[in-house]
Amino acid sequence: MREFELLSRVYALNQTLPASVMLPPGDDMAALTLPRHAASLLVAADSAVEGTHTPLGGDAYDLGRKAVLRNLSDVAAMGNAQPLAILACAMIPEGTEDARIWRLFEGVRETGLAWGAPLIGGDTTVVGARSALSVAVTILATPIDQQTPLATRSSARIGDGVYVTGVVGGAWDPQTGLGRHLHFPPRLAVAHALSQSLGVRLHAMIDVSDGLAQDLGHVAKSSAVDIELVLSQVPLANGVVVEDAIRHGEDYELAFTASGAVPLMLEGVAITRIGTVCGSGGEVRIVDVCGARDLPVTGWEHGS
Amino acid sequence: MREFELLSRVYALNQTLPASVMLPPGDDMAALTLPRHAASLLVAADSAVEGTHTPLGGDAYDLGRKAVLRNLSDVAAMGNAQPLAILACAMIPEGTEDARIWRLFEGVRETGLAWGAPLIGGDTTVVGARSALSVAVTILATPIDQQTPLATRSSARIGDGVYVTGVVGGAWDPQTGLGRHLHFPPRLAVAHALSQSLGVRLHAMIDVSDGLAQDLGHVAKSSAVDIELVLSQVPLANGVVVEDAIRHGEDYELAFTASGAVPLMLEGVAITRIGTVCGSGGEVRIVDVCGARDLPVTGWEHGS
Repeated sequence: MREFELLSRVYALNQTLPASVMLPPGDDMAALTLPRHAASLLVAADSAVEGTHTPLGGDAYDLGRKAVLRNLSDVAAMGNAQPLAILACAMIPEGTEDARIWRLFEGVRETGLAWGAPLIGGDTTVVGARSALSVAVTILATPIDQQTPLATRSSARIGDGVYVTGVVGGAWDPQTGLGRHLHFPPRLAVAHALSQSLGVRLHAMIDVSDGLAQDLGHVAKSSAVDIELVLSQVPLANGVVVEDAIRHGEDYELAFTASGAVPLMLEGVAITRIGTVCGSGGEVRIVDVCGARDLPVTGWEHGS
Repeated sequence: MREFELLSRVYALNQTLPASVMLPPGDDMAALTLPRHAASLLVAADSAVEGTHTPLGGDAYDLGRKAVLRNLSDVAAMGNAQPLAILACAMIPEGTEDARIWRLFEGVRETGLAWGAPLIGGDTTVVGARSALSVAVTILATPIDQQTPLATRSSARIGDGVYVTGVVGGAWDPQTGLGRHLHFPPRLAVAHALSQSLGVRLHAMIDVSDGLAQDLGHVAKSSAVDIELVLSQVPLANGVVVEDAIRHGEDYELAFTASGAVPLMLEGVAITRIGTVCGSGGEVRIVDVCGARDLPVTGWEHGS
């Protein structure tokens, strides 16, 4: 059972969610209102495992940093949201040197703090020596202003343009396991600027973690719309072919849909139109200048 | 490096915590106020690992349930707090059958829901086949009323009585790994009743997870007080000797300090006075009817 299928089935049993859950699981973050208050809270959790998300035997700082960056990317994908705090639960294989554990936590703590999310809790558990070093991070966030809507996955509308920030593909070197995925800047500043400048014209948004085609597929399905992705418009990292770029994961760029005009650049990051929301089938159609292409809309569900 | 030492050193670097962090890491939960709101939020995270926290090869439901129960016990230990929601990050060894993963998540989801904390997020990651099955759970909670203080570890005062709920010892059968620790009722109802009936007379509180002596040691240190623990007063589970009972962990009862009279029973759970807060040295002194006893105040830091 793959992660999406499993978690969808688990969450489908959540029939009795209280009214305080404004945004149920299944988006980049869930949202709650606090009882007896108008305050709302966003929350998400994501792990990083050595050997799966970072190369085996590297600096454990990279693992801690990546776990936090992945969560910050989820905050960015909500548009109108700022990070508040993080918690980290580490699984430490027996016999791991203290210095490595320390580096892991420094990666977590410093990265959180650098982006406005101090480390405020968590635990460590020693596991068998053959287990992987891993850390599960939870991030708390809050809307920046209460008037602007959150950019959920389910808000795309027919007629919207479809956009992506930066470039996609090649974030992970298949030979070395190194690459942008270890130290990408989460797109918080661009997300805020989009939310501010587009306001209610910013509709759906998602971070590109499983591959552009598959992540747009999540938006199409959640919004019950078709998305036409124009292959020739996809902004590519150096040396990458588009067929690979849209299937690779770990770009941690933002893909979004919006109505009306969208700036070509915000906060120093290029924004490129890559398609259109054009029907209500819940699917992604990949086209190029010659028309429809029969590429599978699969992505990369690494280690999950 | 043991868990307490490691995390204390990590958190000590948190010099730049924003003012919104009302209660920094180091207590049962951390507390935040949300920007531009008076609302406050409590948050904690704790893991459960098969083979460490539950017997190897058992029903994975027990692992999921225990991870959530441990977190609910942290909410109880704050006194004036109610659970809001949980998130769960599972590490799944390669080759684990779908049915086991499903049982794990059902243990998480059903336990959370039963105690008012729906599962609203998380992820799964496949890890190497030799890794342990584990789940890291984060719990969100909120004060029940804004007027009553939280029962932190650092609130004990000289002259307070020291109390424990229920009985201690024997929660974990050393032969089978089974026992109360797998299905204990988190002491939320007693905690609320204490908070309501004692009000500001309820001072410090902690849940007994590392062993009564060691957990009282956390209170003594955080509050900079001495705690005299009277061995003969400790309420024991059947067949347990007191020297073991105060060192065993996983009782998940509440230990607390309070001034004035305290009920002998609340919500059907016995409450026993076991000592007195009597100095400012930051230590636990174990005494019996014959005076001071030279027992080490060590506890059980299993798997951490």
